[in-house]
Amino acid sequence: MNKHSLTRERILQHGLALMSQEGLGGVTLGQLADRVGMSKSGVFAHFRSKEDVQIGLLEQTTRLAAASVVEPTMRAPEGLPRLEALMSHWLGWAGRAGLPGGCPLAAGMFELDDMEGPVRDKVLAIEAEWNDLLKQIVRQAVDCGHLREDLDVDQFVWELGGIYLRHHVAHRFLRHDDADVRAQTAFQALIERFRPSLSKSKHIRRVKLSAASRR
Amino acid sequence: MNKHSLTRERILQHGLALMSQEGLGGVTLGQLADRVGMSKSGVFAHFRSKEDVQIGLLEQTTRLAAASVVEPTMRAPEGLPRLEALMSHWLGWAGRAGLPGGCPLAAGMFELDDMEGPVRDKVLAIEAEWNDLLKQIVRQAVDCGHLREDLDVDQFVWELGGIYLRHHVAHRFLRHDDADVRAQTAFQALIERFRPSLSKSKHIRRVKLSAASRR
Repeated sequence: MNKHSLTRERILQHGLALMSQEGLGGVTLGQLADRVGMSKSGVFAHFRSKEDVQIGLLEQTTRLAAASVVEPTMRAPEGLPRLEALMSHWLGWAGRAGLPGGCPLAAGMFELDDMEGPVRDKVLAIEAEWNDLLKQIVRQAVDCGHLREDLDVDQFVWELGGIYLRHHVAHRFLRHDDADVRAQTAFQALIERFRPSLSKSKHIRRVKLSAASRR
Repeated sequence: MNKHSLTRERILQHGLALMSQEGLGGVTLGQLADRVGMSKSGVFAHFRSKEDVQIGLLEQTTRLAAASVVEPTMRAPEGLPRLEALMSHWLGWAGRAGLPGGCPLAAGMFELDDMEGPVRDKVLAIEAEWNDLLKQIVRQAVDCGHLREDLDVDQFVWELGGIYLRHHVAHRFLRHDDADVRAQTAFQALIERFRPSLSKSKHIRRVKLSAASRR
């Protein structure tokens, strides 16, 4: 890594901490220069605009989330174990990944709802990619027979997102100690709602048995 | 209303629109002065500081929510009808109340998680009051026999909050047309989870009958 890339990396590191604590809007070239201990024009040599820094920081966030959330999730066996691993690694991931504040993407979705432009588009693209991964993991749990076949994957993933956001508020804003327990209770209830019903599979087995006995 | 109060009211109206679109951090005395068409010192005659304006705006938000959400909810009969009225009036209330952006309180809970001070304390106090109202409405539904007696009111209200936040993201940030349907599906599933089970009450009745027949 040359000196230019190293400095860029250092700016992104400081910027990520700043964004995690103060939101995307808190990341200005001036504030960033102060944190890194460079001049504003020094930061400007690495990023063309405030939006350029913000997009760089959002990409940095996804790299961090890939290492802290996606990789350990993918090591769990497909199906319910992987879905459960996902929730454990996702909830509160920002703090465990070393960020001093909350999840920049969750905050960004409330900050950027009324703004247009490339930064909003970047958060939209990251959300869409994340949503696809969630859907894939849920679909695998259905294919493994761990969740019911008639499950609406989009609805399931929608509700997972609700648990994540509510946990973020409980954990980061309200600072409630029981945030993890509440989130896991909601998550387990969601799974229960779509667990293949035993009585139904028993019923199917019984029907098959009685069909066999008639032969 | 004298001229001083009228001007203060006008500043709050403009500030509320600004806060709804740009978040609490977007409400600075300078930006507000621009919107109202006064000098910064003119705004300063009505509010001592940026925090003072923000707290005034949060109070204005609760007055608006009282009229748009709480009042129509309270007109519904106690129990499940009132709980259902609450969800209908709460989801997407900011737009119906005339705000050009999203719910300032939802956004504030993501914006202020890492900031200390009177503005954060104000949002905390409003959240606590709102939470108490939700708990009261859910408890009434239990007392009416519309929801199960062993329901954990705190957990139920926690999950309602998740549906609200997820709907906010779907409706305001992602701009999905199905946000209302998704939220109502999640809400109805939450109710189903705690609906007094018919088979259980039948079972109890049967046990009582057989006990009576043994006498």
